[in-house]
Amino acid sequence: MSQPPRKPQNIYDDPDFFAGYSTLERFGAGWERAGERTDLLALFPKLDGLRALDLGCGAGQLAHYLAANGAAEVLGVDISERMLALARTGWAHPRVTYRREALEKAAFPPARFDLVVSSLALHYVEDYQGLVSRIAQWLAPGGVLVYSTEHPIYTACLPGDGWVLDDEGRRTGWRVDRYADEGVREEHWFVPGVRKVHRTLATLVNGLLDAGLVVERVVEPVPSEQWLQDHPLARDERRRPTFILVRARKP
Amino acid sequence: MSQPPRKPQNIYDDPDFFAGYSTLERFGAGWERAGERTDLLALFPKLDGLRALDLGCGAGQLAHYLAANGAAEVLGVDISERMLALARTGWAHPRVTYRREALEKAAFPPARFDLVVSSLALHYVEDYQGLVSRIAQWLAPGGVLVYSTEHPIYTACLPGDGWVLDDEGRRTGWRVDRYADEGVREEHWFVPGVRKVHRTLATLVNGLLDAGLVVERVVEPVPSEQWLQDHPLARDERRRPTFILVRARKP
Repeated sequence: MSQPPRKPQNIYDDPDFFAGYSTLERFGAGWERAGERTDLLALFPKLDGLRALDLGCGAGQLAHYLAANGAAEVLGVDISERMLALARTGWAHPRVTYRREALEKAAFPPARFDLVVSSLALHYVEDYQGLVSRIAQWLAPGGVLVYSTEHPIYTACLPGDGWVLDDEGRRTGWRVDRYADEGVREEHWFVPGVRKVHRTLATLVNGLLDAGLVVERVVEPVPSEQWLQDHPLARDERRRPTFILVRARKP
Repeated sequence: MSQPPRKPQNIYDDPDFFAGYSTLERFGAGWERAGERTDLLALFPKLDGLRALDLGCGAGQLAHYLAANGAAEVLGVDISERMLALARTGWAHPRVTYRREALEKAAFPPARFDLVVSSLALHYVEDYQGLVSRIAQWLAPGGVLVYSTEHPIYTACLPGDGWVLDDEGRRTGWRVDRYADEGVREEHWFVPGVRKVHRTLATLVNGLLDAGLVVERVVEPVPSEQWLQDHPLARDERRRPTFILVRARKP
């Protein structure tokens, strides 16, 4: 039986969550060292003159990047007041506007944008198909959607750390379970009850197709040898994908 | 360093492998009860009048199905003499021709087929990109490729059974490891040394795109409740995907 949609989650405004999250290397300016950043940027079309929307812009690093690299206009949307405050102070740009809104409630006129990006936000959204269908309407013909989200292999066995350990506590692999059972997984991530949505790979891809978009690229980033030299503890990131990146185009 | 391509594998002509394989429910007429069959057939276009190629046709059940359901002409290709002998006796049809050939060596004129199908054969082929690119050439404009192959989640930690067991021997999930390390995995499947090729999901999808095809559907079959009633021991098949099915079209 299908449940009524829940209120959009605003975990980034939870002070305890935020205190933990802000210690991550990828927080703030550290985003420039995030493992998947290069792969994400490589999926962007030429930015010059584009009207861009960043869904789940957080502290604004990506919105700022788009404007600084030629986008004519960037709208960054996020539900978190705290993150938007950081964006407005640390990542302001004359061509960027930040607006507080839940992704689930965002609404724009048809063909309003040439580029929609979303970095690691869609796994918080329950109605993926609904959001992707609306994005497809917001895109002008030829417009592009680029997103990153947590990989189905990563989210399948949430909650908890998926590493399989041997008797001596060594990692022997990553556990996948309940893959076909899509839906909300609550995990303890700095605080209890952080909601993420597990979806299969097929759902991610077919949702784009059903929205009338053409899939142009799928990327499952793995750390480069150079990145691993700076992050020796992250070598296991090659053992299973954490994120999946997609580029799709409106015909 | 890249290795020279190996000789195509012909494991189905190994008498010990064949003795084991022929005990599987999906063997021969049992193919009609294979868990993914309904999902595979659902990806086919209307078959009437189509010129079809079945790559890795095995004992011919699918080639026969295509002809019996309206295809004008079906060519079934397989490397295994033993399987083709079964096809020619058990699954003959006036509009089906069976030909012995390795998938890696098959060659046809451009636009020769309207439909190319391949059921659980591509995970034996090392040069996926090469084969998919050739398939794209063999397809007429508007033509369709439908294939099933072992899922990257399934092949990542070959060799061996990927189930993670707790101290009491109960399954607690499926192990994924070495996901980013693509290549041949040798496993013991009835006999030692059966070679399968692990590829990431991104490689499977992008290979189609790079061949100029349009991805139309991705399916990760899970058993239906009805199928599970007849196969109570297979309930764990919902816990991780075994196969992935794709439909792509030549523009």
